[in-house]
Amino acid sequence: MQLGLVGLGRMGGNMRDRLRANGHEVIGYDRNPAVSDAGSLAELVGQLDTPRVVWVMVPAGATEATIDELAEHLGDGDIVIDGGNSRFSDDAPRAERLGAKGIGYVDVGVSGGVWGKEHGYALMVGGDHGLVKHCMPIFESLKPAGQYGFVHAGGTGAGHYAKMVHNGIEYGLMHAFAEGYELLDKSEFVDNVPGVIKSWREGSVVKSWLLDLLDNALDEDPELAGLRGWADDTGEGRWTVEEAIRLAVPMNVIAASLFARFVSRQDDSPAMKAIAALRQQFGGHAVKR
Amino acid sequence: MQLGLVGLGRMGGNMRDRLRANGHEVIGYDRNPAVSDAGSLAELVGQLDTPRVVWVMVPAGATEATIDELAEHLGDGDIVIDGGNSRFSDDAPRAERLGAKGIGYVDVGVSGGVWGKEHGYALMVGGDHGLVKHCMPIFESLKPAGQYGFVHAGGTGAGHYAKMVHNGIEYGLMHAFAEGYELLDKSEFVDNVPGVIKSWREGSVVKSWLLDLLDNALDEDPELAGLRGWADDTGEGRWTVEEAIRLAVPMNVIAASLFARFVSRQDDSPAMKAIAALRQQFGGHAVKR
Repeated sequence: MQLGLVGLGRMGGNMRDRLRANGHEVIGYDRNPAVSDAGSLAELVGQLDTPRVVWVMVPAGATEATIDELAEHLGDGDIVIDGGNSRFSDDAPRAERLGAKGIGYVDVGVSGGVWGKEHGYALMVGGDHGLVKHCMPIFESLKPAGQYGFVHAGGTGAGHYAKMVHNGIEYGLMHAFAEGYELLDKSEFVDNVPGVIKSWREGSVVKSWLLDLLDNALDEDPELAGLRGWADDTGEGRWTVEEAIRLAVPMNVIAASLFARFVSRQDDSPAMKAIAALRQQFGGHAVKR
Repeated sequence: MQLGLVGLGRMGGNMRDRLRANGHEVIGYDRNPAVSDAGSLAELVGQLDTPRVVWVMVPAGATEATIDELAEHLGDGDIVIDGGNSRFSDDAPRAERLGAKGIGYVDVGVSGGVWGKEHGYALMVGGDHGLVKHCMPIFESLKPAGQYGFVHAGGTGAGHYAKMVHNGIEYGLMHAFAEGYELLDKSEFVDNVPGVIKSWREGSVVKSWLLDLLDNALDEDPELAGLRGWADDTGEGRWTVEEAIRLAVPMNVIAASLFARFVSRQDDSPAMKAIAALRQQFGGHAVKR
């Protein structure tokens, strides 16, 4: 089918390639004219047959403005898909604004990163059944082959919600591996830490794609000597913990993995200054200045 | 090669089958005469050619006594392999006791559970290079096909240490999935929770064997209605956190997953009684009796 695709960065550009390889007509727009098929959003919309379907794949901070500008050129019966990492709570207001002009809205959480072009992207979709059905040829071509990698998770917001939880889980999984790695590294019992990690890739209960990636990283740098222990976080870990608080879900593991990233970015810790001050107050314990 | 195998339960019995299918001569001993090839440990040892290799695969609590009894019948040049879930700190004293009689000792952490018979067992091995080399034909047949699933992790104790960390990581991975599952289940945004879990099996960053098993469980019981939220723990999660304390490794995620299991087994919580008492004391807040 025909698709307009806004945002041709690392994700959008690869998705365009995968969709075209599957026989779809994709007209892409990007601010970077070197990769864009259209000179502007208006021009992109002008090249599409009605009812138009436009997939927005821009960095989370730019999504709202992009969709608002796009909506000025779209009309009744058209469909906007947001495949970016929007907060699920943005979806319902956005669907309402678009709906007032007769424009349908579908939210899609997309996983797979740079591997998706070849192996397919896991898609978590939210929105009305009829809209999702209309877009299925696109989803079928983007998802991995086989029975997995696609879910219509529920109504508006469900796709981004599922992706948010997916990423929250990812934080916890990564941190469990990370803590095990540090213990192996510190212990005097194990000589061959990268070999232990590598051995787990088959036959073990912890077999997983993240473990494969850790093994790849250790192949390139067996002591991770080229990295500092610093990790950023994008919104989805925070939103997952915020949702756990809203719904009173105990979430010690995922919260701990998020907070560990905050610690990793501190040059010094005001909390530990307070601990040091208190230890000195009541016990005269040694401190570092 | 020839191997004596002590303990023919779920693990040992399957390992005997896999080794025999790979052409090894396995003489098994178990207390249960229906599955045993020998009438006693002494008889088992009597049927083996020197230098004998005996693999002990008994429940963790029975390992020490089994090896001590076995050692009475073994002699200089023989080798004992412990494939059970022993605490790594038992290995060095055990190796010393056996070594005084000229008996070699190899510790092996074995992962793979009931799937190992078909797909192979991930093996983490500790001990002297010469001993490990002598036993390699057995390891080669038990491990999965391909380059993964085996590591000689280091000297005595390294195999059980690596397996301990493996299981500690497993606790954290399981709990990250569990927290994400509970949030999806509680949220009003996602209608199709088992469908979301299933979709992640391909193309997603959380793709893993544990996720596949969670999906299998939800196929059988989509709301896990037949289970109580109660989870036991065997030693390895505790030992991992004990080691983190000994070596001052921050281990918030794995410790939280262990502690969550403790909470799951409490009928009531003395700690939360104390919280309730304090809230009532300072604020007159409502309590439940």
